[in-house]
Amino acid sequence: MSNSQSWVSVSPKSHFSLANIPFGIISTTSDQTHRPAIAIGDNALDLKAFAKAGGFHALPSIQEHVSVFSSTTLNDFAALGRKVHREVRTYLQSILAENTPHAGLLKDNAELRKTALIPFSEIQNHLPLAIGDYTDFYAGKNHAYNVGVLFRGPDNALQPNYVHLPVAYHGRASSVVVSGTPIRRPWGQILKDPKAEPKVPVLSPCQRLDIELEMGMFLCRENKLGEPVPVDQAEEHIFGYVLMNDWSARDIQAWEYVPLGPFTSKNLGTSISPWVVLADALDGSKTAGIENKTELQPYLRESKKNNVLGVDLEVDIITANGNKTTISKTNSKNLLWSWPQMIAHHTITGCNLRPGDLLGSGTISGTEPGTEGSVLEQTQGGKQAVQLSGGEERKFLQDGDTLIIRGWSGQEGALVGFGEVSGKIEAALKLF
Amino acid sequence: MSNSQSWVSVSPKSHFSLANIPFGIISTTSDQTHRPAIAIGDNALDLKAFAKAGGFHALPSIQEHVSVFSSTTLNDFAALGRKVHREVRTYLQSILAENTPHAGLLKDNAELRKTALIPFSEIQNHLPLAIGDYTDFYAGKNHAYNVGVLFRGPDNALQPNYVHLPVAYHGRASSVVVSGTPIRRPWGQILKDPKAEPKVPVLSPCQRLDIELEMGMFLCRENKLGEPVPVDQAEEHIFGYVLMNDWSARDIQAWEYVPLGPFTSKNLGTSISPWVVLADALDGSKTAGIENKTELQPYLRESKKNNVLGVDLEVDIITANGNKTTISKTNSKNLLWSWPQMIAHHTITGCNLRPGDLLGSGTISGTEPGTEGSVLEQTQGGKQAVQLSGGEERKFLQDGDTLIIRGWSGQEGALVGFGEVSGKIEAALKLF
Repeated sequence: MSNSQSWVSVSPKSHFSLANIPFGIISTTSDQTHRPAIAIGDNALDLKAFAKAGGFHALPSIQEHVSVFSSTTLNDFAALGRKVHREVRTYLQSILAENTPHAGLLKDNAELRKTALIPFSEIQNHLPLAIGDYTDFYAGKNHAYNVGVLFRGPDNALQPNYVHLPVAYHGRASSVVVSGTPIRRPWGQILKDPKAEPKVPVLSPCQRLDIELEMGMFLCRENKLGEPVPVDQAEEHIFGYVLMNDWSARDIQAWEYVPLGPFTSKNLGTSISPWVVLADALDGSKTAGIENKTELQPYLRESKKNNVLGVDLEVDIITANGNKTTISKTNSKNLLWSWPQMIAHHTITGCNLRPGDLLGSGTISGTEPGTEGSVLEQTQGGKQAVQLSGGEERKFLQDGDTLIIRGWSGQEGALVGFGEVSGKIEAALKLF
Repeated sequence: MSNSQSWVSVSPKSHFSLANIPFGIISTTSDQTHRPAIAIGDNALDLKAFAKAGGFHALPSIQEHVSVFSSTTLNDFAALGRKVHREVRTYLQSILAENTPHAGLLKDNAELRKTALIPFSEIQNHLPLAIGDYTDFYAGKNHAYNVGVLFRGPDNALQPNYVHLPVAYHGRASSVVVSGTPIRRPWGQILKDPKAEPKVPVLSPCQRLDIELEMGMFLCRENKLGEPVPVDQAEEHIFGYVLMNDWSARDIQAWEYVPLGPFTSKNLGTSISPWVVLADALDGSKTAGIENKTELQPYLRESKKNNVLGVDLEVDIITANGNKTTISKTNSKNLLWSWPQMIAHHTITGCNLRPGDLLGSGTISGTEPGTEGSVLEQTQGGKQAVQLSGGEERKFLQDGDTLIIRGWSGQEGALVGFGEVSGKIEAALKLF
């Protein structure tokens, strides 16, 4: 199915080929109700309208659950589980295939096509799921090492626990926003001179605002409080993936983060791409991650090898002057831990994960210049500016900068991609 | 009003005097719908039943909002804001007062009394609000110092940032549970000998399970992402307070917490008391907290002095053998930061707080033996056992132990109390 063509016009370079079928939440000017949709080429298929018109009649197994497509988030759909996601995705691929066996349901129904198949230019995207809890891992070993060197020096760059467990912290769910939402430069306490004594901070707009290139993963299955998820069953808890930009205030972080970890430096906003690529759609991208020679505790040992996603990733910056530069190219395989390992570790103490919970991978960096997932790394802590087109340069982000992350897997004509996650930096409020 | 008596029988020692009127969510065997209630003496007043019977007819200002009392959580009521909370609490005090001007609405309505005024023995309590995000502060300076000594030695016990900002970390909302929910001993990675090289952890049930005596605070007002809450306006964002036991796996915490802070050691469960004491009800308890001689940044300077709650707190342990011992007596004034300061700091980077979000104070300890808010402190890191009645002793919590925190303010006959938050330790699962 995934290699056939669609009767909907889809550019070979589109991230939303027939092989993908990602899910999101949309609204339109004429109907501002938030509702589920899938993406195909440059169009959204409004699943609420499609379901209402009997579009799922040829898929009997979904009949009793069809109300999930009238929901304002994807949580109810996610909670139906992987088997249903698979059936619905395969069914929608058949509906959209050139040689569809169900032509009357959409392809040959001009009226429904007009209502339900909506050009991207006419839709607004919203957060795809209501996020209960958001947890940010730190599985990008190259990033962890690079940043560890800057914060603590090379001897303590990676703590001894790093290779034994997927380090993570609980993040802030309320400030996760969908691509396109502006990010305001935050105020915070900053220690201007870390070597001066006594240590007295100033209150200032952040001077070291940065991106973090991450993948995000949404959960679809609940485990009860007190019951860990075995690593080999964890895949069944994965709904799908998004791109994530975990905006970070480096100067605020450096002062606040001991001893309990990052707090306000991370809660100013976290942007995600709008279309959730289902776990099944990325199964073919799986590959080896960063090798871990440590003998792992049993709850982290996977039967399946090469269980890390291989998604190509790029970061663009567009300055206020309109100069556009790709500042990083990397791949999501640069992780020490797989998503099932992260789930197994998150729940080893019995923590309950719920449909709609979001996990972040941690920042993804390669080992070569130009593959870093943060500006902090590219500029070696702000020491060496990144050169941009048009003669501009950056040590950290400036007001008016727009940051865009793109990600995709597969070959032209059958790309499984995320589109992009973008955010523009607004000037700080005038507070004091 | 608060010093008058109720026509409902209320013991002088009851935490739920007419001066209190805390809000919670209950169900009964005959009606398992979760619904709002208030506590008076040893009874719950079912607000859904009361509202349905026209109980709020004499309070015109609530008429358009009366559907909040049919909700399954208090979020909608909380979101109405402090003015409405005040009106509803004052009105319910008048309804329950001996000399009520509205006798026909409940006091003299035997049928409604039978339906709506339900003995505690017949109700089940549930989480009072759907918690969006949970943030745990670290404002108990005595605790932070004591634990800092154990983890990092006296020279680095308090980091330089501690007196400049309210240190905090994002916690786990999904595992916050209501009083009475059992807590299962977690598994996790533990470094048995921190001095051995190389550092190799074992996987084991937690050997150092502990309590943390805290106050919790629920938010009632949203601030938009990007817009900090000024400290002198923060009080209007406070719905009310609960007691909190932030169960902690000390051995798991010690190994995992660098560099991003506590993670699985804290997400195994956090227990809260079921009745939310409204902010207004505790206004009279306000007093001076721990003195902070630091010159604060402007966003943390409060116009109001003595703005820390003064709630008496006690911790009991009941062993599996039934021996009951009060192991700690302290007061919530042992905090370096007020709740408005915590809100102002949480939002200085623009983080949005929402109705139903929960903040924890951090562990509350006094300076004397017997006033510590954790067993870790009482036993100096497990070195010196706490003596219990019946000849038992504890270095950390054992399976079958029940931990109970009580808290109250005011004088007998007009107590404003929380009742209790309790939790019993269950044995670890047999995982491996």
